[in-house]
Amino acid sequence: MLQDQQYLRIPGPTPIPPSVQRAMAKPMIGHRGNETSELLRSIKPRLNNVFGTNQDVMVVTGSGTAGLEAAVVNTVKPNDEVLVIVTGAFGARFVNICEAYGIHVHKFEVEWGKAFDPLVIKEHLRNFPNVKAIFATYCETSTGVMNPVHELAAAVKEVSDALIIVDGVSCVGGVETRMDDWGIDIMVTGSQKAFMLPAGLMFIAVSERAWDVIHSNRNRGFYFDLVKYRNNLEKDTTPFTPALSILFGLDQALELMEKEGLENVYSRHKLMKEMTRKAFRALDIPLLTNDEDASDTVTAVKPVDFDAELFRKVIKNKFGLSVAGGQEHLKGKIFRIGHMGYCSPADVLQTLAMIEIGLIQSGKNIELGKGVAAAQQLYLEKGENH
Amino acid sequence: MLQDQQYLRIPGPTPIPPSVQRAMAKPMIGHRGNETSELLRSIKPRLNNVFGTNQDVMVVTGSGTAGLEAAVVNTVKPNDEVLVIVTGAFGARFVNICEAYGIHVHKFEVEWGKAFDPLVIKEHLRNFPNVKAIFATYCETSTGVMNPVHELAAAVKEVSDALIIVDGVSCVGGVETRMDDWGIDIMVTGSQKAFMLPAGLMFIAVSERAWDVIHSNRNRGFYFDLVKYRNNLEKDTTPFTPALSILFGLDQALELMEKEGLENVYSRHKLMKEMTRKAFRALDIPLLTNDEDASDTVTAVKPVDFDAELFRKVIKNKFGLSVAGGQEHLKGKIFRIGHMGYCSPADVLQTLAMIEIGLIQSGKNIELGKGVAAAQQLYLEKGENH
Repeated sequence: MLQDQQYLRIPGPTPIPPSVQRAMAKPMIGHRGNETSELLRSIKPRLNNVFGTNQDVMVVTGSGTAGLEAAVVNTVKPNDEVLVIVTGAFGARFVNICEAYGIHVHKFEVEWGKAFDPLVIKEHLRNFPNVKAIFATYCETSTGVMNPVHELAAAVKEVSDALIIVDGVSCVGGVETRMDDWGIDIMVTGSQKAFMLPAGLMFIAVSERAWDVIHSNRNRGFYFDLVKYRNNLEKDTTPFTPALSILFGLDQALELMEKEGLENVYSRHKLMKEMTRKAFRALDIPLLTNDEDASDTVTAVKPVDFDAELFRKVIKNKFGLSVAGGQEHLKGKIFRIGHMGYCSPADVLQTLAMIEIGLIQSGKNIELGKGVAAAQQLYLEKGENH
Repeated sequence: MLQDQQYLRIPGPTPIPPSVQRAMAKPMIGHRGNETSELLRSIKPRLNNVFGTNQDVMVVTGSGTAGLEAAVVNTVKPNDEVLVIVTGAFGARFVNICEAYGIHVHKFEVEWGKAFDPLVIKEHLRNFPNVKAIFATYCETSTGVMNPVHELAAAVKEVSDALIIVDGVSCVGGVETRMDDWGIDIMVTGSQKAFMLPAGLMFIAVSERAWDVIHSNRNRGFYFDLVKYRNNLEKDTTPFTPALSILFGLDQALELMEKEGLENVYSRHKLMKEMTRKAFRALDIPLLTNDEDASDTVTAVKPVDFDAELFRKVIKNKFGLSVAGGQEHLKGKIFRIGHMGYCSPADVLQTLAMIEIGLIQSGKNIELGKGVAAAQQLYLEKGENH
C-alpha cells in the first residue's frame, strides 16, 4: 500500500498547501527586527479584507479557545450578565469560559443541528435588559450549522446595547465575513481551519464600540490584554514573541486567497458544501442539518442503518481518510466531513468516492458512484470558476 | 552579495535545525487521533529529562509570557502576597503579570547585570511571612545573567513555605535543570530558545506541592487552567488544538538533544559562553556580568568607546548578523549575543570573526583575529566533545 498518503477531511486542523509549508520553513528571524514589521505590514490589509473590517486584526499566539477567552476577559467582568447562544459544543465553550470568570450567564439553547433565529433572540433579550454581551458561534463545528450572525446585530439593536461577540473559528476565511457592515463587535478565528495553516495563531478584531468597553475595563489579564496587541500593532510589532513560522505561513496563505479572489474562495466553499450534500442525498443517507442552516465548511451526516464509528475506522484504515465523529450526545450518531481551506471540488469528489467504498465495506448497501455522480453533475452546472 | 544567508545570534528566537524544519513540514494530522497521542507519548519522557522531573511536563500553545501567566493564575489569588526577584526585564514581567491580577507584590530588586544571592533572599523573606510564592528568573535574557535557582529552594525553606516558581524561558534545554532535586515547584520555558524551535509552544512542569495549591484554587481561568492540561496529558491528549507543526518539530528537536546527550548539550553551551567571554576579554571590551553570574546561553557586552547601536547596524548590513540591543535603561549601552540551541562552537567562532570586522568598521581599533584566537585556544583545550 502506498505509504505517507493521508486525506485529512476533519473540520480542522486542515491540510497545509505546499507553498505555505515552504514559507513556514524559512530561516528564523528576530521578532523585534524590520523583517517581522514588514511581515505584519504585509498581512494587515489582507486580514482586514478577510474579516470585512477597517479595524486592525490582531494576531495572538494560542489555540482558538485562547481567542474566545480573550474576547471574554477584555469585555466583561465578574457578575456582569451575558447571553450565550448555544447551538453546539463550541457555544457551550463560551459558557464554560464565562463561568470560569464568575460571569452571570444566560444560556439560550438551540437544538443541536439547527441554527438560531435572530428574531427569537431579540424577543428573548427583552427579558434581560442588563446583558452586556451576546456570544454567538458563526459556524458550529460540532453540528455543521452556520448561524445567521450577519442578521444578529441588526435584529437585537432595538432591544439591547450588548456587544455582539462571534466565534468564527471554523469558517472565517472560507465564508463571507463583513464584520463592520453586520455590526459585529468582536470576531475571533483560528489559524488551523479555513486559513490553511497549522494551529497556533488566533486572529481577533474589535469594533470601536467594543474598544470603548475594553478601555474602561481594568481587569483584562496580561497575555490576553488586547490593548497591548493594538498598541503594538500600530507600531507593526507584537507584545510577545509570536509564532513566527506560522506568521510566515499566514502571509503566503493570504497571498493564495488573494490570488484566487475572496469571492471565489467563498463560492468554492459553497460549491463544496452543495456537492457533499447532493451526494449524500443521492445515496439516501440523511444529513443532520437542513439546507438553510448548513455550513459551507463542514457537513454532518447522520447514518440510520450503518455504524458511524465502524465506518470511520474503515475509511481511515483503507485510505488514510479522516473524517470527524460526533461530540457529546451526538457521539457515535453522526460523522462530520470538513471541506474547507486547502480543499478543492476535486478533493471533495475523491473524498466522496472513498466514502462510497467505505460504506460498502461497512455493510451499507449503496449504488457505487451514485453520490459522486450527483456531485459531478453539480460541478458541471456551477463549477466554472473552480 | 550572497543572498538569503542570515546569522541569527539574538537570545531567541534562535535558528531551526534542518531536520526540525523537515519534521514541521509533515502533512497535518487530526489533533484527536492516535498520531497526536503517539507524538505526545514520544515527547513525554524526553521533556522530563530536560526538566529534571518525574512530573508531567505540559505543553501549552502560546508565547513564553503565556507560560509565566499560567504559573501566576494557577497558584496565586488576588491580594495574596508574593515575592518577585527582579534581576532584569523578565523579572519585571512577573511583577506586571501579578499586578494585572491584583496580587500584592513585594519586589526584590537586584542591580541589572548581577545575579541574586539566595542567602540574602532568605534573610529578606523573614520580613514577609505571608508570601505564597517566590518568582525568580533562571536566565535573565535582558542582562545575560544566570541566577542560582538551584540553591534558592534549599536556602529559603527554613523561613518560608512559599512555592518556588521559575522562568526558565531562555535557558532550559541548554543548561542543566534538575527541577525535582532543586525543589523548584514550577518551571516554565518556551520553544523558541534552547529548544531550537519557532515560538508558539511553552512547556510547564509542576511539583506535587504546587499541584495541591493549584487544586485548591478555584479561579484558574480557562485556557491557562493547568488541571485541564494535566488531566488531558494523562490520556495522551491536550485540552485545546495544539500548535501541531511545532509539536512535530519538538519531537525531532528532543531526538537531536538525546543523540548529542544532554550532558554534552550543557557542556557545549558552557563552552560557547566561555569562548565568547574569552574573545571579548582578549579584545579588551568589557562584559556586563562577572564570570560567576554569566549565562551559558547569552552574553551581554558593554562597549565603552564605540556605539553599540551603530555596531549592530554595521554587522546586520554587512553580514546579516543579528545580535540584540539592550532593553530599558540598558538600551544603547549593551549588546547581547545569543549562543544557544542550534549553535555550535564553530558558529561562535564565525560570529566572533564577523564581530571583529564589524568593530573595525564601527571605528573601534582592535587587532583582527585576536578575539577569535582566544576562543580557538579555549576550544583546543576544552572542546574535545564538541
